[in-house]
Amino acid sequence: MAPIDLNSDLGESFGPWPMGDDGSMLAIVTSANIACGFHAGDPAGILAVLKEAAKRGVSIGAHVGYRDLVGFGRRNMEPTSAELVADTIYQIGAIQGLAKAAGTTVRYVKPHGALYNTMAHDAHQAADVIAGIKAIDPSLVLMALAGAPIVEQARAAGLTVVCEAFADRAYNVDGSLVSRRLPGAVIHDPEAIASRMLRLVNEGRIIAIDGTEIELAAQSICVHGDTPAAVAIARTLRDRLIDNGVELKSFAHG
Amino acid sequence: MAPIDLNSDLGESFGPWPMGDDGSMLAIVTSANIACGFHAGDPAGILAVLKEAAKRGVSIGAHVGYRDLVGFGRRNMEPTSAELVADTIYQIGAIQGLAKAAGTTVRYVKPHGALYNTMAHDAHQAADVIAGIKAIDPSLVLMALAGAPIVEQARAAGLTVVCEAFADRAYNVDGSLVSRRLPGAVIHDPEAIASRMLRLVNEGRIIAIDGTEIELAAQSICVHGDTPAAVAIARTLRDRLIDNGVELKSFAHG
Amino acid sequence: MAPIDLNSDLGESFGPWPMGDDGSMLAIVTSANIACGFHAGDPAGILAVLKEAAKRGVSIGAHVGYRDLVGFGRRNMEPTSAELVADTIYQIGAIQGLAKAAGTTVRYVKPHGALYNTMAHDAHQAADVIAGIKAIDPSLVLMALAGAPIVEQARAAGLTVVCEAFADRAYNVDGSLVSRRLPGAVIHDPEAIASRMLRLVNEGRIIAIDGTEIELAAQSICVHGDTPAAVAIARTLRDRLIDNGVELKSFAHG
Amino acid sequence: MAPIDLNSDLGESFGPWPMGDDGSMLAIVTSANIACGFHAGDPAGILAVLKEAAKRGVSIGAHVGYRDLVGFGRRNMEPTSAELVADTIYQIGAIQGLAKAAGTTVRYVKPHGALYNTMAHDAHQAADVIAGIKAIDPSLVLMALAGAPIVEQARAAGLTVVCEAFADRAYNVDGSLVSRRLPGAVIHDPEAIASRMLRLVNEGRIIAIDGTEIELAAQSICVHGDTPAAVAIARTLRDRLIDNGVELKSFAHG
Repeated sequence: MAPIDLNSDLGESFGPWPMGDDGSMLAIVTSANIACGFHAGDPAGILAVLKEAAKRGVSIGAHVGYRDLVGFGRRNMEPTSAELVADTIYQIGAIQGLAKAAGTTVRYVKPHGALYNTMAHDAHQAADVIAGIKAIDPSLVLMALAGAPIVEQARAAGLTVVCEAFADRAYNVDGSLVSRRLPGAVIHDPEAIASRMLRLVNEGRIIAIDGTEIELAAQSICVHGDTPAAVAIARTLRDRLIDNGVELKSFAHG
Repeated sequence: MAPIDLNSDLGESFGPWPMGDDGSMLAIVTSANIACGFHAGDPAGILAVLKEAAKRGVSIGAHVGYRDLVGFGRRNMEPTSAELVADTIYQIGAIQGLAKAAGTTVRYVKPHGALYNTMAHDAHQAADVIAGIKAIDPSLVLMALAGAPIVEQARAAGLTVVCEAFADRAYNVDGSLVSRRLPGAVIHDPEAIASRMLRLVNEGRIIAIDGTEIELAAQSICVHGDTPAAVAIARTLRDRLIDNGVELKSFAHG
Repeated sequence: MAPIDLNSDLGESFGPWPMGDDGSMLAIVTSANIACGFHAGDPAGILAVLKEAAKRGVSIGAHVGYRDLVGFGRRNMEPTSAELVADTIYQIGAIQGLAKAAGTTVRYVKPHGALYNTMAHDAHQAADVIAGIKAIDPSLVLMALAGAPIVEQARAAGLTVVCEAFADRAYNVDGSLVSRRLPGAVIHDPEAIASRMLRLVNEGRIIAIDGTEIELAAQSICVHGDTPAAVAIARTLRDRLIDNGVELKSFAHG
Repeated sequence: MAPIDLNSDLGESFGPWPMGDDGSMLAIVTSANIACGFHAGDPAGILAVLKEAAKRGVSIGAHVGYRDLVGFGRRNMEPTSAELVADTIYQIGAIQGLAKAAGTTVRYVKPHGALYNTMAHDAHQAADVIAGIKAIDPSLVLMALAGAPIVEQARAAGLTVVCEAFADRAYNVDGSLVSRRLPGAVIHDPEAIASRMLRLVNEGRIIAIDGTEIELAAQSICVHGDTPAAVAIARTLRDRLIDNGVELKSFAHG
């Protein structure tokens, strides 16, 4: 059985404003998507979480986003191609520098929020981010939504892609995520989440929202750490996976 | 006779606002101090000037500054030590990433504006910037004001330091710059500037504002490109140096 | 014959970066759309241009935009309704304060860039901006694109609307602007522009890009001041209108 | 016995980042210092807290600060005079606009963080903020540190000044605050705080850190709401004052 990676968004504090429980999450996940300063994260805070991640051997990803701090990168934007390519490089470079100072290395890139969602299906913005990654370091892995068009696009462009599933989200029968606006889109029961993810890891299958069993290939599972309940869900998932003999390991190691 | 380097601040446009004549200056200087986004410069604009600098073989420096866009990094600020160290790393990393995408490499760091002036004599802020440089890449050269305390402090910390003179500024007899608030602080005549700098390069001496001849050791000369007159001064200086057999060459090459 | 208003975007400098020739334009226009700090403009610069406008008796409009400085408010964005309402109020309030300090008063609101274009046809964003204006001061006039759906929407909501024509833009036969991406969209000849606008003022008609004569009702004409050529066009237009007995006067006076 | 005002800093959330328990504090205080967007606060969040304050009849102050979001306005800065005057007006105007939309009115100005501390003794920055207030509305009250030079300076300039004491801070024998770097600077015991403030209100006296009883004239008491413990302290203080017959009332009413 292949090992599985657990990833979470960290480093999202900004100046005086904390966000999430990075310390707890670094004891749970194997990969940390670190904010790069455009949608969240200030250099001193990013450096601190990178040092802690380095100490714990957690893999580092650049969590690049739109330049929209007040909107937390969650609002759709339409940067030009030149802007999106350069913004991607700038953010990755900045966090590569901080990672080096922290004694670690950026292994992958996971776009954030509205950029993540737009890129999943918008080939133009996807192409810009892919071009940015390739321009700074083509060996960086792209973490993307399992089943989305971006996966094949990035692979065709020469990038290694790791597909991720979302631990607490319901899936449509076509493998896409159920929109957050619909009832049942988010699963809250820690045990139900753990069971679903255990099955996903063991069998590559998940029950869609209509009850159908579908195939879903994921090498990483995304968990949240922004509330105590979210941390508890992540911890339960980790424990259940380990108890059932699943090896938790970043795709970037070994 | 040793070669001399000519440096200038470039990449200081921001979004829709142009600043300076980067194209003309890249044909004049041997080293370009490129804004890193905190006091000026946006990623797309920085990438464009880095590509042009790469094409022309101009050396690249990270022109790190305070995080103060509206003040252009010219207002005194008091970041904490943790902030200044991390802000330095972040900016250098960002421009290293863009430089790699442009096919070139960051060779040195030159702090900007109020940070440059404060660091010259404030050992605390100097120590933070030095720590930031060492944390990301101790082989980066620090460009600093000839004769200022920072020079010895940085060397003692293990950095290579290149000292610079300012082409259009008058000097006090102790080798410090005459304050801009005093009459005669800025020299406007292109020929006078060229003559002063030619002597500096050939003899390591300059006439201070009181008429005294003083020693000044500089491996680089700073010129400006923010106005047509400034570009003309820089071009005249370059021509006069070459006509007199001085080799113009970045300290970072060969 | 009714008087006509000439308006232009001013106050768009930011920190060290100048934009446009505000001094020259204030001698030409009767209404000044003043940037409010979100897409351009810093408080000190805005205050300075407001003082000059007050001295010259030019009417003041709040040129509200998306919160996107690096993109100059020209990139499409999707703020939430609560954000867009509050951002509109905040910007208008800020410039009302500065106008009071300058001895003048904000008379109207003209949205900027991507917000202007989106609002012209997107009833949701239009409703948010209208709600913002009404919440702070329902007597503020909205300046909008002649012929666009926003005009009726704003009037139905109780706002006074002034319709504007663009001096240098070609029109489609339905009264909409020819897209900038198409040939002939922008007219460069000062005399041609002046003749078109003179006819618009006198007859309420303009020749569309296909040669058809169409009706266009406009109480204001938008001119630009961002280049010397643009200033010259605006001055020529002003002179021609005056020479032909047209009274130039802000809709907000008398 | 004169009534006393309780004030607290509110509206300091930013985008996705909450700060403090504004809802609880609005049930405790009589005056709310509302962030204006430069050191904290986004328009939608500010508008929401203003609406709640209006509902509860809490007086509104403009909590103006340095333009330093990541540093939360706590870092010393040196804006030019023109910048500080205009930044003050801009922030007050913005929040006046939002207050009007919320059905309330800005009654006073309380500078924040490093600006507050610097202004207390730096006559230049104090003069700029005073000039800004007078330029937009000379009837606005300035809330300032009891005993600081700014109090007389502002009164001499024609402003009404309200002096405030800090509930949880120790005082030097000269009436200044004990530096936070020194032991005993901050008092944590809710009962001790309540007793000290009750005496201050009743007798105009407080025990300084050396045990001496000193006079201190304050019309407002500043309390915090950034932690549950701080809210509890504020609530205890409010209850103790009311139980002892002290009327809690904003200086801006009646």
